[in-house]
Amino acid sequence: MDLGKEGPLVHIGACLANLLSQGGEGRWRLRWRWLRYFNNDRDRRDLITCGASSGVCAAFRAPVGGVLFALEEVATWWRSALLWRTFFSTATVVVVLRGFIEVCRDGRCGMFGEGGLILFDVSDVTVRYHVGDLLPVTLVGVLGGVLGALYNHVLHQVLRLYNLINAKGRLAKLALALAVSVFTSAGLYLLPFAVPCTPCDPAFGDACPTVGKSGNFKQFNCPTGYYNDLASLLHATNVDATRNIFSTGTAGEFRLDSLLIFFGIYCVLGLFTFGIAVPSGLFLPIILMGSAYGRILALVLARFVRIDHGLYAVLGAAALMSGSMRMTVSLCVIFLELTNNLLLLPITMFVLLIAKTVGDAFNPSIYEIILDLKGLPFLEPKPETWMKDLAVGELAAAKPRVVTLQVIEKVSTVVEVLRSTPHNGFPVLDWPRPGVSELHGLVLRSHLMAVLKKRWFLTDKRRTEEWEARERFSSTELAEKSGSIDEVAVQLTPEELDMYIDLHPFTNTTPYTVVETMSVAKAVVLFRTCALRHMLIIPKFQGPEIAPIVGILTRQDLRAHNILGAFPHLANKRKVH
Amino acid sequence: MDLGKEGPLVHIGACLANLLSQGGEGRWRLRWRWLRYFNNDRDRRDLITCGASSGVCAAFRAPVGGVLFALEEVATWWRSALLWRTFFSTATVVVVLRGFIEVCRDGRCGMFGEGGLILFDVSDVTVRYHVGDLLPVTLVGVLGGVLGALYNHVLHQVLRLYNLINAKGRLAKLALALAVSVFTSAGLYLLPFAVPCTPCDPAFGDACPTVGKSGNFKQFNCPTGYYNDLASLLHATNVDATRNIFSTGTAGEFRLDSLLIFFGIYCVLGLFTFGIAVPSGLFLPIILMGSAYGRILALVLARFVRIDHGLYAVLGAAALMSGSMRMTVSLCVIFLELTNNLLLLPITMFVLLIAKTVGDAFNPSIYEIILDLKGLPFLEPKPETWMKDLAVGELAAAKPRVVTLQVIEKVSTVVEVLRSTPHNGFPVLDWPRPGVSELHGLVLRSHLMAVLKKRWFLTDKRRTEEWEARERFSSTELAEKSGSIDEVAVQLTPEELDMYIDLHPFTNTTPYTVVETMSVAKAVVLFRTCALRHMLIIPKFQGPEIAPIVGILTRQDLRAHNILGAFPHLANKRKVH
Repeated sequence: MDLGKEGPLVHIGACLANLLSQGGEGRWRLRWRWLRYFNNDRDRRDLITCGASSGVCAAFRAPVGGVLFALEEVATWWRSALLWRTFFSTATVVVVLRGFIEVCRDGRCGMFGEGGLILFDVSDVTVRYHVGDLLPVTLVGVLGGVLGALYNHVLHQVLRLYNLINAKGRLAKLALALAVSVFTSAGLYLLPFAVPCTPCDPAFGDACPTVGKSGNFKQFNCPTGYYNDLASLLHATNVDATRNIFSTGTAGEFRLDSLLIFFGIYCVLGLFTFGIAVPSGLFLPIILMGSAYGRILALVLARFVRIDHGLYAVLGAAALMSGSMRMTVSLCVIFLELTNNLLLLPITMFVLLIAKTVGDAFNPSIYEIILDLKGLPFLEPKPETWMKDLAVGELAAAKPRVVTLQVIEKVSTVVEVLRSTPHNGFPVLDWPRPGVSELHGLVLRSHLMAVLKKRWFLTDKRRTEEWEARERFSSTELAEKSGSIDEVAVQLTPEELDMYIDLHPFTNTTPYTVVETMSVAKAVVLFRTCALRHMLIIPKFQGPEIAPIVGILTRQDLRAHNILGAFPHLANKRKVH
Repeated sequence: MDLGKEGPLVHIGACLANLLSQGGEGRWRLRWRWLRYFNNDRDRRDLITCGASSGVCAAFRAPVGGVLFALEEVATWWRSALLWRTFFSTATVVVVLRGFIEVCRDGRCGMFGEGGLILFDVSDVTVRYHVGDLLPVTLVGVLGGVLGALYNHVLHQVLRLYNLINAKGRLAKLALALAVSVFTSAGLYLLPFAVPCTPCDPAFGDACPTVGKSGNFKQFNCPTGYYNDLASLLHATNVDATRNIFSTGTAGEFRLDSLLIFFGIYCVLGLFTFGIAVPSGLFLPIILMGSAYGRILALVLARFVRIDHGLYAVLGAAALMSGSMRMTVSLCVIFLELTNNLLLLPITMFVLLIAKTVGDAFNPSIYEIILDLKGLPFLEPKPETWMKDLAVGELAAAKPRVVTLQVIEKVSTVVEVLRSTPHNGFPVLDWPRPGVSELHGLVLRSHLMAVLKKRWFLTDKRRTEEWEARERFSSTELAEKSGSIDEVAVQLTPEELDMYIDLHPFTNTTPYTVVETMSVAKAVVLFRTCALRHMLIIPKFQGPEIAPIVGILTRQDLRAHNILGAFPHLANKRKVH
């Protein structure tokens, strides 16, 4: 059993992209100067999105599916240029893949390249279904949604348990991985002994049974002329197993008890393998489970319906995936690209939508659960209902008082502020005339650090011009990781601490602002769609004694979980769908 | 020749959806009460997007392509819920379509349902291409991009000419349509006489020549045993013509001169048919042109390259489409769904990207050109470079002074304001204490009209509560089309005109605001991504004598064309890519 591979591949893609985006800074700066173009926040996000879509594309050889996966599941924001950029990266992946497959055509690279660009080709299936078949197909979808939601629920519990175990140190982590792998090997080897042998259909001739690596019918413990159907599924590569189980016109090939055992062991293994310290994915285990579920349903319903069992397997896989991952368009395209059968499209779409709807009634998608467990500040696309009843001003008031800087600030104050707070952005205020106040903008921690490092200080409170700063600071210097304030601060003399910094050239004078009465729900949508890092809250009223800023919100502040920490009474309201 | 059908179908889809969204108001209000849920701006846009994707889906039987078309080309904003909503609507379309095709299987409905769900099936093509073939394929892409850009340029000129003719009245419109159709019929009938007859390949037996509606080889003016290859292309339905020209292993079937004539006449007809008063589309004419272009290139390059001519035709069609429409992912998927050959995917992606890049170097996409000619306020996804050099405050200052209302306003003032301006939204100001000012929010014209119609006036300046308004006004009443102010105003008595309206319950207190120094480029992105109708500009400085609002911008104000009208000196800067 391999563990599914899209997880590691997506990781590798995203990490490579991130690495590339950071190539312009730090120790590679001198050598990779051209990479400085990626040295801003937006381009880095774009590159990571491209990396993730390339990973999916490489795992499933599904270029369009990869683009849509990134669009539907990975990115919290999207701009039209990103569409053709991800498309370009998956196109490159697929062209390179195709080149490798061509090189490996005659088996030079082990099993790589088997199946060409389409992993589970079922294009030879002639699909026959009629209006009357919609009822059993609906059943596949509904049950798939329920099973998917159940899978998410159990995986959530297992992952929480694993988090506790993994927190105990490396040894515990290793022991857990070892225990799971011993259990996996034992289970996979011993279970096929539990089922009886099946006689080969003479129509297959020499193809049944086989003893080699590949082939549909594994002899295992059976006499010649017989095959072990469970071994055929368990002792093959995942790709072969999926092809076997998707194959049509093979209603009698697998026994009900073998399928039940296969389904059960994959459920257990899928659940217990995912969180251990071994790279593994979600797609392939769920596809295998789903196709077994589809075939089981086919055997159960065989008396009433005459749909092909292979079709049931495909639909079962789609239903379970959608029930667990809750994607629609991207799953549909990935499925299309895996199976190469366009005629299955309408019925697959139908099943996907039903399973997603049913699953959504129970719990969030598996990706949301994992992100939540890892504590990543992923903003969900749909704000919760109760967010409408909370104003951003109230949310900001529940935080510690906002730390602001003046537009010409003493060096000692800047050092003090950087030391006492971990914030990455500070609102800059100004009072140009008595009674007139100004929210001048937002200055980033990294820019303040760059100024301190270069000691670009003024002896008096004069205003500098932007070109002066441009001459001194390159954009690469300003975008660098800032390092520790303490290291920089100890090098400053008392005279320097008494000098001034003019923040005019370093301040973003047009940060996104919202009025304090705006609902958190509306702010979350703005935050997500515009891909913000900081959102400044301005007061509703303007007057001489009113400060021009109320607070500042970040992604972490807007996460439902964190808001509920400060406002627990909101929790008893339901989520919008 | 049929004219392409995605144009009308997309229109019908979008119009039906719009109709549905307006069903909750006006004369259908009583009967279709449930439709009131669609009675807001956001849902109406969503429905129109769903309608457009359903139209594309129905035209090409491409459900996923339809979703992506809407995503890439139609929608100026996108939210994740929209993805599965459009997906659901195209899934419904495709299930219904499949039902109809099943009913019509035995030819009961004319030619409907021919070809099943896949229009130009080329799945039997075994694609063979190698790394060495990338060079001619690149040539297909580059030339396709150039030709597509040229097509856009000429179509632009033709449409401008047609706009002049159509403006002369209905008779001119009719005469134009008649002239084009006479020219089309004459050209299509007479041109095949210009090419010599081709002897039938004996391998085809009785299939060549044919005289009926369908079939690959039209006899036309030729003796028995011969066929007219140009007639085979011109006198078939578009679907048959495309299938003919895409067919593989048919290098000798079409003569170079026939293909050149076919390409030429389709160029001329495609260009001259699009703008006339007849529903027509862009996709099919361009696919046909492109496939002819591909075959012509194949014949020219035949000496050097051994790629199949049918493959050239497919790639040529993709290149020309991409060169003219500049879509990537959606075109790729539509192509996949039209041709049902997944193995073509990598090479199609490659050609699409090249043609798009080449085309973008010359002019905008054909859809942008058409939208621009129709004067629709479509905000482009990429702001122009020069927009970075203009602040929204300057833009607002170039407009007439913003018209504001007080939060408790005299009826006569409201009537006067509504009469004197066509605006749909008005900022509402308040001065709760001396020296303290407040931008209370934005009130919509339709809400003011609703208040005037119901005569919900106050005799003194008191503040009403929101529940009082909720009791009096249903959400449907507030969302209704407002009608003419003059009709409402004449019914008001002088006493009523002297009374007050409290705008508190009708004001959106958290409109999107930006500071006056924000660049227009940044504002455009915000406007588009958050799907705004109005954007309020607030001042940079706050003080006792400074008004809390600088101006208000709408979609029209942010269109590049309109900004350049007020700031022509910005025009000589280039566009960002």
